[in-house]
Amino acid sequence: MASGWFYVTCLVLGSLGSMCVLFTVYWMQHWRGGFAWDGSSSMFNWHPVLMVTGMVVLYGAASLVYRLPQSWVGPKLPWKSLHAGLHLLAFIFTVVGLVAVFRFHSHGKIAHLYSLHSWLGITTVILFASQWALGFAIFLLPWASLWVRSLLKPIHVFFGASILALSIASVISGINEKLIFSLNGGAKPYSSLPSEAVFANSTGLLVLAFGLLVLYILLASSWKRPEPGILTDRQPLLHNGD
Amino acid sequence: MASGWFYVTCLVLGSLGSMCVLFTVYWMQHWRGGFAWDGSSSMFNWHPVLMVTGMVVLYGAASLVYRLPQSWVGPKLPWKSLHAGLHLLAFIFTVVGLVAVFRFHSHGKIAHLYSLHSWLGITTVILFASQWALGFAIFLLPWASLWVRSLLKPIHVFFGASILALSIASVISGINEKLIFSLNGGAKPYSSLPSEAVFANSTGLLVLAFGLLVLYILLASSWKRPEPGILTDRQPLLHNGD
Repeated sequence: MASGWFYVTCLVLGSLGSMCVLFTVYWMQHWRGGFAWDGSSSMFNWHPVLMVTGMVVLYGAASLVYRLPQSWVGPKLPWKSLHAGLHLLAFIFTVVGLVAVFRFHSHGKIAHLYSLHSWLGITTVILFASQWALGFAIFLLPWASLWVRSLLKPIHVFFGASILALSIASVISGINEKLIFSLNGGAKPYSSLPSEAVFANSTGLLVLAFGLLVLYILLASSWKRPEPGILTDRQPLLHNGD
Repeated sequence: MASGWFYVTCLVLGSLGSMCVLFTVYWMQHWRGGFAWDGSSSMFNWHPVLMVTGMVVLYGAASLVYRLPQSWVGPKLPWKSLHAGLHLLAFIFTVVGLVAVFRFHSHGKIAHLYSLHSWLGITTVILFASQWALGFAIFLLPWASLWVRSLLKPIHVFFGASILALSIASVISGINEKLIFSLNGGAKPYSSLPSEAVFANSTGLLVLAFGLLVLYILLASSWKRPEPGILTDRQPLLHNGD
């Protein structure tokens, strides 16, 4: 029964996640001139799409790997690899998304990293990179002792959830900022709520709903992997002496 | 030892919280013309101060009441009342903070509730009001059964933490928006990072650090009230038949 509800929730989550990506693509395509890789504002348009896809949707999916009941039995290593691999994919999307905005700024002689949105965003990406590297070194490579792992596991879980929350705050402030920059000064300013503004605001709320649902699934105790005893927790990628 | 660390963390939290409020006051006082209650932009200036004080600092403090080791022994009712009372105080600050921005908008013929910041903010306040009313009805009034309470407690805790995360996202997008509106078009635009921008961006990061520390204390299992057995959980404000 708990497992049935879990899959229904995953279905809702999958739909929400797809809508987040599709809505962002549609916003950029329909109102902001579509996509290119030439330093123009069409290159900037990759930024929201790749950040929402990488730092929110893929990151969210990757963080939920251990909530799949299939991951609770048998060897843990394939699931650890899937967890790390999906997060790596999320990180690659993120880096390409950053390249898009930095190249757009350089091309248009716009200053880098001045807004609070950018300060928060870059902090989030740095935390994500550190979290991934530390997670790989401690939980996948074979050298860390069980003591170190059990010490770091709650911190890893806490920062995992926090980075998602920071991503959502970055996306919200980014959508808000983009709408102010794009609409104000034009015929239909943000405050007149043209259809683009309603659509992009709604996209922001969708991202929020997706993020909250991921955090709920992460924290709901009945969906957590039952503690399987201490031994199965120490399956490193490489055994000592391999 | 765990308790010693708890108090050190609370000291850090108290300093961070005070800095959040003082930095926001200083930003408004030094760069934005100070405070008034007359519909002008000086009336708007109450908005960030009251929202940071209410929805972040007081809300954060109120949510941590059950982490005080003193609350783990003896009757739970005084702590429940403190928890509800501090949240009510936070809510009053929030409502006055909303009045400040709505009156400023009305006075200046500016549209209400168009930006994603405002959509998110108002959603957060509505969730907060619902959470408070439901918490009061279920956990303080004597009518809810133990079954209903134990069903709703994890949801109450989850939404409690989520509302704080949404408040932080609202504050970040609000600071970002305010700096764009105030600085762009002037001699020193946001992108030139004048001292006001550095100061207000730093205020945003302080709010973030405060919020993350509250969430860490909330979620760190060693600082949670030990489950005291089922009976002490049902101490309503009024006993049936009082």
